[in-house]
Amino acid sequence: MDALSRRLTDFAAARRWQPFHTPKNLAAALSVEAGELLEIFQWLTPEQADAVMEDPGSAHRVRDEVADVLAYLLQFCTSVGVDPLAALSEKIDRNELRFPRPS
Amino acid sequence: MDALSRRLTDFAAARRWQPFHTPKNLAAALSVEAGELLEIFQWLTPEQADAVMEDPGSAHRVRDEVADVLAYLLQFCTSVGVDPLAALSEKIDRNELRFPRPS
Amino acid sequence: MDALSRRLTDFAAARRWQPFHTPKNLAAALSVEAGELLEIFQWLTPEQADAVMEDPGSAHRVRDEVADVLAYLLQFCTSVGVDPLAALSEKIDRNELRFPRPS
Amino acid sequence: MDALSRRLTDFAAARRWQPFHTPKNLAAALSVEAGELLEIFQWLTPEQADAVMEDPGSAHRVRDEVADVLAYLLQFCTSVGVDPLAALSEKIDRNELRFPRPS
Repeated sequence: MDALSRRLTDFAAARRWQPFHTPKNLAAALSVEAGELLEIFQWLTPEQADAVMEDPGSAHRVRDEVADVLAYLLQFCTSVGVDPLAALSEKIDRNELRFPRPS
Repeated sequence: MDALSRRLTDFAAARRWQPFHTPKNLAAALSVEAGELLEIFQWLTPEQADAVMEDPGSAHRVRDEVADVLAYLLQFCTSVGVDPLAALSEKIDRNELRFPRPS
Repeated sequence: MDALSRRLTDFAAARRWQPFHTPKNLAAALSVEAGELLEIFQWLTPEQADAVMEDPGSAHRVRDEVADVLAYLLQFCTSVGVDPLAALSEKIDRNELRFPRPS
Repeated sequence: MDALSRRLTDFAAARRWQPFHTPKNLAAALSVEAGELLEIFQWLTPEQADAVMEDPGSAHRVRDEVADVLAYLLQFCTSVGVDPLAALSEKIDRNELRFPRPS
């Protein structure tokens, strides 16, 4: 994931996009892309949604939107100096205390 | 990241949450959490947004929402069988052709 | 609806909130509130979602989030000088041409 | 606004779209469209965002997305039986108590 973050940083720097990549703009872009992923599913029944990867066109769209969401999440994290894997690991630790494993 | 995906899968399985973790529901939850991350920034000027990590309360909130976004993204990917790192790597390859590096 | 737009404008002016109510911030806030409305439904089956107004707590939450979405939509429209009813009327006109009524 | 709600209901009924217009789907669609409105602003500086209506192309896009957001908000309200104007009026009443007018 670090290698992908570096590729994204280099990509944006080579095209002089850094002035646009502020934390606020990247948080907005992340939310917009998450909406585009949801758009694929908005009119589907639960059964149709579960079969979304069986159609090559939909499968490509899903992979494309997943990539966009992850790209903006990583670029957001770079912009604010957050390690997303460490943040998630700590959150799971907290959730294990908050929602105890049923016996 | 694979280890975190497995922890999330085990966490949900132990609490019998899998029936809720359909692709459609997880795409909705991802979008909702991306909105919660954006909420932190919505009234900030660009300058205030750039300084968001200097306040310990805001910094904790940012890390917490990043964790939630990544958690739902990974769980979504598990539910549809997509490898998010491969999807992003392929997308960057495509974007390098689409937006040529200026000379 | 004009009367509500005026109440919202007066409310914000009396509290000196206008500097925050830029088109970009209001578009972000609208998206955040739409996410909060979706959050109510994210884990519900279609059947549970259809019955959401039968629970007084959920019904209050739905009305509250509808109000927030409409409030930010109206304030956004004030900030950019768009008449939302005229915009929707024109859009329905266009859609009637785009998706002809089946005979 | 009631007349627009009725046009939307007739439009959907004539095209047999009602089975898709569940509260959960409409809440998702509302959130997706709010994201599309935000997309127009995501890379703009506050100054550029304030001037968005001066460009005819952007102005048309803004009006189009406002129409989509309002259309799904009204259809959502129809699906759950909520009067959006009454909901907003009550919310402003509550906010006037919660955030007292400064003297």
